[in-house]
Parts: sequence; structure tokens; C-alpha cells
Amino acid sequence: MYVQRNRSLSIRSRRDPPANRHRFSISTFRGMQQPELSRKMGKMIKSENSAIGAYEAAGRERSSIAAQLSDWGESTDDDTVSDISDKLGVMLAEMGELEDVFAQNLEDYRGVLKQIRNMESSVQPSREQRQKVTDEISKLKYKDPTSARLETLEHELVRAEAQNLVAEAQLSNITRQKLKEAFDIHLAAVVERSEKQTIIARHARRLLTFIDDSPVVPGDARPAYDHETEARQVLEDAENDLRGWAPSVEPIPTSAGQESRVNGVEHDSDGLTTGLGSATGAGVSQPMTNGGPSAKKQLEEPQSQSQTEAEPIAY
Amino acid sequence: MYVQRNRSLSIRSRRDPPANRHRFSISTFRGMQQPELSRKMGKMIKSENSAIGAYEAAGRERSSIAAQLSDWGESTDDDTVSDISDKLGVMLAEMGELEDVFAQNLEDYRGVLKQIRNMESSVQPSREQRQKVTDEISKLKYKDPTSARLETLEHELVRAEAQNLVAEAQLSNITRQKLKEAFDIHLAAVVERSEKQTIIARHARRLLTFIDDSPVVPGDARPAYDHETEARQVLEDAENDLRGWAPSVEPIPTSAGQESRVNGVEHDSDGLTTGLGSATGAGVSQPMTNGGPSAKKQLEEPQSQSQTEAEPIAY
Repeated sequence: MYVQRNRSLSIRSRRDPPANRHRFSISTFRGMQQPELSRKMGKMIKSENSAIGAYEAAGRERSSIAAQLSDWGESTDDDTVSDISDKLGVMLAEMGELEDVFAQNLEDYRGVLKQIRNMESSVQPSREQRQKVTDEISKLKYKDPTSARLETLEHELVRAEAQNLVAEAQLSNITRQKLKEAFDIHLAAVVERSEKQTIIARHARRLLTFIDDSPVVPGDARPAYDHETEARQVLEDAENDLRGWAPSVEPIPTSAGQESRVNGVEHDSDGLTTGLGSATGAGVSQPMTNGGPSAKKQLEEPQSQSQTEAEPIAY
Repeated sequence: MYVQRNRSLSIRSRRDPPANRHRFSISTFRGMQQPELSRKMGKMIKSENSAIGAYEAAGRERSSIAAQLSDWGESTDDDTVSDISDKLGVMLAEMGELEDVFAQNLEDYRGVLKQIRNMESSVQPSREQRQKVTDEISKLKYKDPTSARLETLEHELVRAEAQNLVAEAQLSNITRQKLKEAFDIHLAAVVERSEKQTIIARHARRLLTFIDDSPVVPGDARPAYDHETEARQVLEDAENDLRGWAPSVEPIPTSAGQESRVNGVEHDSDGLTTGLGSATGAGVSQPMTNGGPSAKKQLEEPQSQSQTEAEPIAY
């Protein structure tokens, strides 16, 4: 059940063992650092990795403690303590399992955050390209205002602006849609873990009432333990309640289903870069003489065709 | 809020830095290992330490991610994303805080488990002493059946048996009482964390509905964000619900209050050994000629005096 994932994200662990001939472990920082635009989300995704690791560790420890508790209880040679500690152990193990399920759900949420980061990373070059062409034009206008290259550059700027316009729209759409989707998953997972652990803990407390803790005087025998059937019933009740659990959170309405071409790119949640792909539209890659802002007219889609019913996020 | 506790329990970390003159870091294992009787509980207490550390780490990470989320949202230059991510951050930080409170409650539960372990450790010598005297007597009876020392040893055995009888009763009483108390704390803490996190998560999901994720076409402006007042109301609602939360778990009835002299020893939850103290009673330290089992008559207390009302464990 406990799949070991490699949680080490530090470049330190990738270093080769030190040899006599010293080599720097990395040759350049260029290209290794995330683009400015996606750096904050990248850092958050990394922190989330640590949080998930902590929940996995908590789940593992809880399951291990559950077995230890049962084992300890057996060694006490006290029928009451032995039976109750074994059944408490069963319920603690289930709680540990729920911590692990929670960690897996957080991993799904983290995958959706990666889609935001990937989109941010892919928009960065488009912003830079537009800025580069703009700078080149103003430089050339100052140095050689009659240059024939100016017209070529103006065409290039129109293309760059159009591409960036699409990229910024995609970024806005993906950011809002995926932020919503990510926290839909995260918060539903919190509710699921909480409600199920409440069920288990409340039933487990019933087990405690079967421990007769009235003090014995030295040499006296304790009355025989006679709650075994009731204790087994507690486990069954808890199991039934867990089986009967169903998510009760309201689905989060989304209008993201209305999109089609602008954000039609499939996102690879593991790669850092995602191309803008065909979403820029065939018309944009040809030179246009009209200004940037009106370029959007060519990109607009027939809304009546792509409009679909708002679908709640399935969870 | 986050008190750093030293979670390192390995003897490795206590080693001095290696010097040229080699010294073993420990000189003997005798006395360092826990008595057999308390070894299982000792191991469980150590595992619980790791589990608590994992929850503390999860809480720290969650609070840190909360701040990062708010910071990221601000950097998007999108009023909707900025406001919602800030308020989601506030609620995530509260969830992180609850993980830390949970860890502190587990630390209390762990302290109660230590009382069981301490009692187990303290009973071990009493068992060994009785066995030692028994062995000595049978050895002497074989070698020198007329020895005058035999009578002294018989007296010693009666004392050892009486002391052990008290110790075993104390062990049984403390084990049952503290097992109940420990899991009362543990399970109530699970319910508290779960119910409070459910409150927060359900309100936080309302925030998501304020994110308009209908796609924009390139160049189009989004409608202005107008859910700021509603979003602030969500935070206030969550705060009010958290303030209104009260523990709803049934108190666990206990009869442990009936005890007085047999388990009247104060237990130091940090020390390993706890003396049997005065609980053996003044009469027991004098030689008795009657057999072990009937010695209990002298240890019995007037039940009518020490009996108190069964008090539910305050939580």
C-alpha cells in the first residue's frame, strides 16, 4: 500500500561521490532555474511535496504503532487489555491508511498545480519575444530610420503580439480553472479524511468503556472479561459506517467547459515546458498588417458552437 | 507557536566527533536497555515520537504553503485570484495550526503511555527479587538442609512475595487506568482536529465558487471582481463556527478514582524508574510467618473510606 516515492528534490543528492579531481557538480545555472513567472508556484509545489511526505510518514508510523499496540496488549497477559488493544490497533491502522489516502489525494491536487506552473513557464518566452522585437525596432528607428528591416520587424511584432495575446488569455483561463480544480480536490480530501477519522474515533471510544479500571487489591483476581462480543460489534459498526460514507460536499460549479480552442492544449504535468501548440490558430502565424489588439477578432471562436453546459467538477 | 523539540533519540547523534584516539561511544549496554517487561511499550512510545514529529512537520509545511499561496496569488495581477488565494491561505494556515495542536495533544497522550512504561519498569525488579530468593532457598535446601540461614531466607521470601503482590496489583491498575486515559486523549484529539478541519474545508469550498473560470478570448478583459465582501464573510463564518465548536464526545467513565493507597505513587513521566514507595504498607516490611497469598489481608484498605464517586475523565 505504501508506495515509496522519491521525495528528494535537492540538487545535492544528485552529486556524484567526491573524487580527487574536483569537478563542480553543476556547470551552469542558466536553464536550471525556473522562469521568473513560474518561480512562486514552483516553490509551492516543492513545499507541497514535503507536506505530502510528512503525511505519508504519519500514516506509516500510525500503522506501525497500531501493530505495536496490539502486540504489547497480548504480552500483558490481561484478557481485557489484550482484546481492547488489539481492536484499538485495528482502528488505528485504518486511521493510518486514511492518512496515506489523504497524501495520495494531495498528490493529485499537486498534479493540477503543476499544470498552472507549466502554463506560467510556457508564457514567459512569449512575453520575452514581444519585448525583444519591440526593443529591436526602437533601436533601429534611432540608428537607421530608413532601414528596410523595419517593415519586417513590424510584421514580426504583430505576430509576437498576437501570440502573446493568446498566451496571456490561456494563462488566465488555465490559472483560474486549475486553481479551482486543485482546491476542489484538496478540500474534498480534507473533508473525507476528517469525516472518516471521526467515525473511527467515535467508535473506538466505545471500546474504552469496556476496560474495567476499578482498582484491585493485591492478590485479588479481576472479574473475567466478558465484552469480547460487544468489542467485535464495535469494529463491525465502524466498518459499516465507513462503507456507508459518501462525499457530501457540494460540487464546485465551473464554466471552464465552455472553452475549446484557446486552452485546447494537453498539459503534461511532469514536464516543465508546454508549447503553445496549435492554440495560436493558423491565421496568426501569417503576417498581419493590422495592430495587435484587433488581432483578437481573428482568434475569436464561434461561441455558439463551443458553448457547452457548465459541468460541475466530478469528484 | 512551533516549539522545536529534540526528536533525536538515536545514540548516534550523541557521539563526540571522531578523534585520533579511538574510544567506544558507550561503555556498557547493561542498564541502558529497558527491562524486558517495558520494552514493547518503550518502543511504541518511541514510534509515537516519530508520528508526532511527522504531524508537526505537516503543520509547519501547511502554514508555509498557505503564505506561499497568498504570495503567488498577489503576483498574478488578477484581482480574483489574488483575493481568493489570500483567503484560502488564511484557512490553510488555520488547518496547519490544527495539525500542530493535534501533535501537542498526541504528546499529552504519549506522556500517559510513559506512566504505563514506568510502572512496568518498576515492577520488573520486584519479580526478579522474588525469583532470586526462591532460587536461593531451593539451592540451600539441597546443599545444607539444616542451615540457620534458611529461616531468614523464608522470612525474606514472604516479604518479597508481599511486595511483588502489591507491585503486580499496581501494574494491573495503572495499565488499565492509563490505557483508558491515554486513548481518551488521543481519540478526542482526532475528533477535534477532524471536526474543526471539516468546518474550515467546507467554508473554504465556498470561496472557490467566487472564481469565474469561464474562458476569455484573447484581448478581452474579464468582468471586474465583485465578491470581496462575500469572501470576507466566508472567513467570518468559518471563524464563528470554529469559536462555536465544543467537544461532543461522550466522556469515558472511569472507576480509577476508587483507588487510593495501592496506586498512590506520583509518577514521573520522564524518569524510567518509579519506586514502589510507601504503597507496600508499613506492615509488610516486618517479617511475617504466614504464607504469601494471605498477606493481602494486611494490605486491604477500608473500601468504604477510599471509595469516591466515579469521575469521568475531564477533557
